[in-house]
Amino acid sequence: MKFRIEKDTMGKVEVPADKYWGAQTERSRNNFKIGNSGSMPIEIIYGFAYLKKAAAFTNCELGVLASKKRDLIAQVCDEILTGKHNDQFPLVIWQTGSGTQSNMNVNEVIANRAHEIAGNIIGEGEKTIQPNDDVNKSQSSNDTFPTGMHIAAYKMIVETTIPGVEQLRDTLLKKSIDFKDVVKIGRTHLMDATPLTVGQEFSGYVSQLNHGLKALKNTLEHLSELALGGTAVGTGLNTPKGYDVLVAKYIAEFTGHPFITAENKFEALAAHDAIVESHGALKQLAVSLNKIANDIRMMASGPRSGIGELIIPANEPGSSIMPGKVNPTQCEAMTMVCAQVMGNDVAVTVGGTQGHYELNVFKPMMAANLLQSARLIGDACVSFDKHCAVGIEPNHDVIKELLNNSLMLVTALNTKIGYYKAAEIANTAHQNGTTLREEAVRLGYVTEKQYDEWVIPANMTGSL
Amino acid sequence: MKFRIEKDTMGKVEVPADKYWGAQTERSRNNFKIGNSGSMPIEIIYGFAYLKKAAAFTNCELGVLASKKRDLIAQVCDEILTGKHNDQFPLVIWQTGSGTQSNMNVNEVIANRAHEIAGNIIGEGEKTIQPNDDVNKSQSSNDTFPTGMHIAAYKMIVETTIPGVEQLRDTLLKKSIDFKDVVKIGRTHLMDATPLTVGQEFSGYVSQLNHGLKALKNTLEHLSELALGGTAVGTGLNTPKGYDVLVAKYIAEFTGHPFITAENKFEALAAHDAIVESHGALKQLAVSLNKIANDIRMMASGPRSGIGELIIPANEPGSSIMPGKVNPTQCEAMTMVCAQVMGNDVAVTVGGTQGHYELNVFKPMMAANLLQSARLIGDACVSFDKHCAVGIEPNHDVIKELLNNSLMLVTALNTKIGYYKAAEIANTAHQNGTTLREEAVRLGYVTEKQYDEWVIPANMTGSL
Amino acid sequence: MKFRIEKDTMGKVEVPADKYWGAQTERSRNNFKIGNSGSMPIEIIYGFAYLKKAAAFTNCELGVLASKKRDLIAQVCDEILTGKHNDQFPLVIWQTGSGTQSNMNVNEVIANRAHEIAGNIIGEGEKTIQPNDDVNKSQSSNDTFPTGMHIAAYKMIVETTIPGVEQLRDTLLKKSIDFKDVVKIGRTHLMDATPLTVGQEFSGYVSQLNHGLKALKNTLEHLSELALGGTAVGTGLNTPKGYDVLVAKYIAEFTGHPFITAENKFEALAAHDAIVESHGALKQLAVSLNKIANDIRMMASGPRSGIGELIIPANEPGSSIMPGKVNPTQCEAMTMVCAQVMGNDVAVTVGGTQGHYELNVFKPMMAANLLQSARLIGDACVSFDKHCAVGIEPNHDVIKELLNNSLMLVTALNTKIGYYKAAEIANTAHQNGTTLREEAVRLGYVTEKQYDEWVIPANMTGSL
Amino acid sequence: MKFRIEKDTMGKVEVPADKYWGAQTERSRNNFKIGNSGSMPIEIIYGFAYLKKAAAFTNCELGVLASKKRDLIAQVCDEILTGKHNDQFPLVIWQTGSGTQSNMNVNEVIANRAHEIAGNIIGEGEKTIQPNDDVNKSQSSNDTFPTGMHIAAYKMIVETTIPGVEQLRDTLLKKSIDFKDVVKIGRTHLMDATPLTVGQEFSGYVSQLNHGLKALKNTLEHLSELALGGTAVGTGLNTPKGYDVLVAKYIAEFTGHPFITAENKFEALAAHDAIVESHGALKQLAVSLNKIANDIRMMASGPRSGIGELIIPANEPGSSIMPGKVNPTQCEAMTMVCAQVMGNDVAVTVGGTQGHYELNVFKPMMAANLLQSARLIGDACVSFDKHCAVGIEPNHDVIKELLNNSLMLVTALNTKIGYYKAAEIANTAHQNGTTLREEAVRLGYVTEKQYDEWVIPANMTGSL
Repeated sequence: MKFRIEKDTMGKVEVPADKYWGAQTERSRNNFKIGNSGSMPIEIIYGFAYLKKAAAFTNCELGVLASKKRDLIAQVCDEILTGKHNDQFPLVIWQTGSGTQSNMNVNEVIANRAHEIAGNIIGEGEKTIQPNDDVNKSQSSNDTFPTGMHIAAYKMIVETTIPGVEQLRDTLLKKSIDFKDVVKIGRTHLMDATPLTVGQEFSGYVSQLNHGLKALKNTLEHLSELALGGTAVGTGLNTPKGYDVLVAKYIAEFTGHPFITAENKFEALAAHDAIVESHGALKQLAVSLNKIANDIRMMASGPRSGIGELIIPANEPGSSIMPGKVNPTQCEAMTMVCAQVMGNDVAVTVGGTQGHYELNVFKPMMAANLLQSARLIGDACVSFDKHCAVGIEPNHDVIKELLNNSLMLVTALNTKIGYYKAAEIANTAHQNGTTLREEAVRLGYVTEKQYDEWVIPANMTGSL
Repeated sequence: MKFRIEKDTMGKVEVPADKYWGAQTERSRNNFKIGNSGSMPIEIIYGFAYLKKAAAFTNCELGVLASKKRDLIAQVCDEILTGKHNDQFPLVIWQTGSGTQSNMNVNEVIANRAHEIAGNIIGEGEKTIQPNDDVNKSQSSNDTFPTGMHIAAYKMIVETTIPGVEQLRDTLLKKSIDFKDVVKIGRTHLMDATPLTVGQEFSGYVSQLNHGLKALKNTLEHLSELALGGTAVGTGLNTPKGYDVLVAKYIAEFTGHPFITAENKFEALAAHDAIVESHGALKQLAVSLNKIANDIRMMASGPRSGIGELIIPANEPGSSIMPGKVNPTQCEAMTMVCAQVMGNDVAVTVGGTQGHYELNVFKPMMAANLLQSARLIGDACVSFDKHCAVGIEPNHDVIKELLNNSLMLVTALNTKIGYYKAAEIANTAHQNGTTLREEAVRLGYVTEKQYDEWVIPANMTGSL
Repeated sequence: MKFRIEKDTMGKVEVPADKYWGAQTERSRNNFKIGNSGSMPIEIIYGFAYLKKAAAFTNCELGVLASKKRDLIAQVCDEILTGKHNDQFPLVIWQTGSGTQSNMNVNEVIANRAHEIAGNIIGEGEKTIQPNDDVNKSQSSNDTFPTGMHIAAYKMIVETTIPGVEQLRDTLLKKSIDFKDVVKIGRTHLMDATPLTVGQEFSGYVSQLNHGLKALKNTLEHLSELALGGTAVGTGLNTPKGYDVLVAKYIAEFTGHPFITAENKFEALAAHDAIVESHGALKQLAVSLNKIANDIRMMASGPRSGIGELIIPANEPGSSIMPGKVNPTQCEAMTMVCAQVMGNDVAVTVGGTQGHYELNVFKPMMAANLLQSARLIGDACVSFDKHCAVGIEPNHDVIKELLNNSLMLVTALNTKIGYYKAAEIANTAHQNGTTLREEAVRLGYVTEKQYDEWVIPANMTGSL
Repeated sequence: MKFRIEKDTMGKVEVPADKYWGAQTERSRNNFKIGNSGSMPIEIIYGFAYLKKAAAFTNCELGVLASKKRDLIAQVCDEILTGKHNDQFPLVIWQTGSGTQSNMNVNEVIANRAHEIAGNIIGEGEKTIQPNDDVNKSQSSNDTFPTGMHIAAYKMIVETTIPGVEQLRDTLLKKSIDFKDVVKIGRTHLMDATPLTVGQEFSGYVSQLNHGLKALKNTLEHLSELALGGTAVGTGLNTPKGYDVLVAKYIAEFTGHPFITAENKFEALAAHDAIVESHGALKQLAVSLNKIANDIRMMASGPRSGIGELIIPANEPGSSIMPGKVNPTQCEAMTMVCAQVMGNDVAVTVGGTQGHYELNVFKPMMAANLLQSARLIGDACVSFDKHCAVGIEPNHDVIKELLNNSLMLVTALNTKIGYYKAAEIANTAHQNGTTLREEAVRLGYVTEKQYDEWVIPANMTGSL
């Protein structure tokens, strides 16, 4: 491999000749061989691309950066956002906890690529644009990294998580309407209970997701606050007047999302409660989705020796040894995602607690977990929707049979003959393996006519 | 011990003669000897007292309960709320996951005590009021328990957690104003960084708590939704028309809090995402409080060999072996509370995921964890405020000395001489154990006059 | 209330006249009003009683304490261990993170009670025994508290957790033998699969618990290491030579458990990895128990519209609204306990990570969580065993019917006709609602005779 | 892109012509677009390669597979283990929870590549080797996936985690010897305490890691148990007699690790407590490493306004805005890894609890988390060791100054003049800003000579 020499304040470093990155990126690559290389989420790099461009525009507008430099920086940022430089960001999550070297990675790539765009050869001549003094102007890792991670997180939640959950929610809502007249046995404690409709069951799922979406949206305001302008410790040292508000305005413009400057930059650097907050809402969604996926696979269990009330699509052969087996695989992918999100929530929490003084140094880990959770939930909802939810159908025969066998229909008699006599009917039928109707009449508590008038499952669902 | 005979649908049970509870409570006492007896939080019993009274009023108003029975039930509920019957609720958290026996415990105590109030002797004659048919009228454990736990949780958060956090927040806000001109060294990565004021540091804490309070308040709407009226599976079987809305109105009236009936009762029984949501916000506050308490104890460390920038009150002898030692004990209580809340969050999450079909059966555990977390945060904030925060003072001598020694003041020169030369000054001073000023001048990058004009810590805080 | 004056190095304090505790306990009571009073687990106080007695014996034997003082201290310790002084320990978990005030609480109670035993009146005259100089001799909170918590934790695990789990394991083992010939359908992905016996299923539970017990026992060695003798920072300052080994020997003698002195006292004060380790094993048991309890309630679901393969005891009326309902309540108590233990594990983990320098100050919280988890698992296993496991019976009719309906018996044909043809048979039978035998013959892949020879469920269980 | 047609029991599928995978892999690719493609850890694929080869050898030896087929299968497995087919495994973690499609992915790749090796063109002619009937012979996804994940996990722990931790442990042990005479001030509650040596501090870290290593090794026995031979539900259906023991023997031989067949296959499929157990030990190591890394960065804090007792290597410029700043970056990477491992532990726990009946369907998620944690800890220890631990040096000047200032040296006087008088000396010196010696003499409790004889820091460390 060919190398060129790059340098930083610590001296010279050999860097692969075909890469745009510089000395600090290369040091970090060598100093942090932890896990797979390049694990720093690309979405954070894109977040940096937005903010570096915005900073260049702001610096120029406020008179501290030449427009030519602004344009060069902006041009490389736009290139980065196309994905064409993805291989220029080899660093890992497990680096400096402020993400300093990833900030420098972006600064160095922009500077070297700009040098090239300006018609020069990388490694030759004075850099057209300096990574620290130009690209990083009016910035610090300490405010850029949290800004980059807020941009990435906000975008992921708004562009992937929420649409994914909403897509599934819409399907479940449609099902709750389609199945609103399908009366089935209810189950509490996993045991037979009074009836409800399949539509009612699904309406509960819809309500869970609606509450979860609302909770997630509630967190976006905190997440829309950007640290940029706080520089090293939150005071905004070395930024021109008005910089923080203006740079947030540019970021909002470039991303199309309503980012604003954080009112308190000290919090914005030293704590990442906004990440904790948003991830908490993702965890709530995971809790809801786990319940929903679990219910669906239990109701679809069988085909012959399970509950069998729902039919779900058969998407792939289910077993490498049992021929003809079909499994609730989308439910499984979903619940695995949910378990992961619950775990990630603890990682984010632990990281969030350990800010010290003016800086929290668990930034890359916290951001990576949030992005993974947000992505997985969004993707899993779309997958679950497309390959499972849309195809769910009630198995009417099974539903009817299980409903009519139920002893809990006796509850309809509570208000007629009292809880104790009703219990006696149910217990007797259970012991004798008979029907409620038989025992109710035999015990003399109701006539056949009364029974037929009073015990009508559909009337017990309150949905009429 | 003397006993009397009580019975339920399963038969007769011996119950201590001096207790109001009945057969089902006694069965549960014997069937669930898990942990200390009486662990079911009393706040949930009080929540039941509110809802039983509200149900009696609603049932009466809707024509299904006699006003005499309503009044007897209401009278016992009021007695329970005074705390005088606290010893009548011996059941544990670790019972039926629907809390059925605690619902019956309340029903039984009300029925027997009402029997007594009505001039009878417990265990003699037909019960004046039936536990199931009267006290539990238009109710199920499945909708009463979640209602009771929402009432308890809402009250605890609004009456204990929020006021506690606000009290601490107010003190920290006052401190941030008091200390707004105390310039100190900043620290990032635990290492010396550019300066800020003590007031700015404290403003970050205030901002964290304000965001946390907002996040917590965002969850109250979900928590204000009551399951009552859903009865067994959410359909509202055996309730009179209009019951759910009216009973919520009465609960709102009796508690003074804006409770409403849950729009979707199926969710309200089968999932407790509202508990997950509120606990998530408590966990966020724990993350914030952990950061704050940790910072304060680190800044107060010493008295001679630590950081020593803050002075905190000495409340007790700190050591049984080291004479004269004083420790940041309030910080320790607080951070232990925070760790507990983080753990509780996982317990709540795990419980929340495992609702099956029409019922989540982790109710008592989820409720108990939420109540503990909400109580501990509120109490710990008050304790921390009173015994620590209000007494915090800067140690001006130490602060000044540490500030003036710092090499990071060199950052002020970045915009004058560039990052690289500034780095050279700092590195040289570090190696030689000299001051920035000496090296800056010696290296010829600035004159003494320039240095003194440019490197003014207070100017670097942006607070002027 | 009457008060007397007690004092410590900070001055005088009013203490309730009828209590043995002194100034430092009283300060802590007032300074830490967090949660319910007296939350510090009594088992830790008992651990202190063992160690204070052992320290008195050791100090005496090594010539630094008079035998008369030794005997007085020992006598009070013995009284404490009878439980008669339980109301003398009013402090909370949420105090100093070293548990210093609980150490002093014990020291003060012992000193004052000894004064009384020696024929004096508390509060009058020079204390016969000094809390710090005598009771606490050769000790520090920093080594006594972790010693007390190791004693308490070890005892709880060995005396409650392990016997409880073993009791349940023995019952499950018996069931696995009793049910070894009951062939039933297997289920994977909740879907019908090839058969196995109920005994085989239960043998899996036994194997889980055996592995869990082994894992828990593996942790006891670490937990048997005592910090005592490390005093303030682990160096053993102010202890006589040989003290640490001898005091551990006495503790082993008094408790009947094989405690030893920790080889490294610095770890023993600054980190509580032994607690983390033991709690990790408790969490593993919780994972296993959750699986077992969950399976049992699913297999017992019904009675008419669930799986219904197992019959479990009916211990209490299951519903306040649905007459005759019986629920898997022991499974619910167990799974709530499991969720709590999973949460506690995170609290313990978070506390364990945050030791600083020579001391971890999350001791009371970590100890309380371990004790709760260990107690709950032990109690819940006994409760589950007694009220559920011992009474489990197969529902032979249901089991047989579900088995014979299954399409997965086709797997037996894989080795005869290949996976693809077998799949065709199963799929066709599924679509047509017919039996495997019909379709197998109709498709011409096997004769009726071959089918009956090859597809024998019992032969498919490998248990013959 | 060119495609060829592959088929499975569900019909035909278009597959990219240049790939070895078949119909089921392609279905899974399209049905589970969740997160990045190819997220299934390659180590699990390698685990499959070992077991497929072992199964082929066992099947051949037991007479159910031709030796020619065995050799073809083995040859492809060996190729896979070289890494040359890494791009043939495009599936994600978030698929069927049994990992069925990854098993089929391996089966299909082996079958098609074997077809090619045998001189045929993929997609043409009858497959030389059938994915299900040959490659998967005597296997099911349900026993292969857990076998593959145990192989992968065991290897990662033994080959990466343990050596990494041991390397760091050895360095810390060396440091504890090197620094055994460097007396420094101790700190408890972050506050000044009695002295100890730097070597003693480091010995505590060594002891933590030794205990952690022992705990991790304790889990290996459970992890060495292989499910293979259980097939679909644990009964071993469709395996020749003796298969399970023999196949484990081959796996042990091929991997060089002491794998054995699981005594109970029902547990081995339905529960993954072995993964929970091993991850619990990884979490314990994370707790220890977090404490160690945290201590080191606090003691290295400064350079001028922190604690400054340790000097750690400067590996990269620490700040993009503050020139000359050096940060404890390896500590930060380590503590981020620790937080991740703590989170992963919850994901593994949640997954582990939710096995249903004969199968746990959280396998890929659990395995991926374990592998990540095991890898990260191993890598982070090596990185921390190489770039930080080996270079740690005491800052003797700072250590000496902080030691001599300390007021806690007064503890040495406890046994001479009693705790109360010693406390008075310390308190007075603290209030007056004087030295202990001055006040001790001034108060008349000791003479200067006595003070100098009694208060010798090195004597207080017990290390002489």
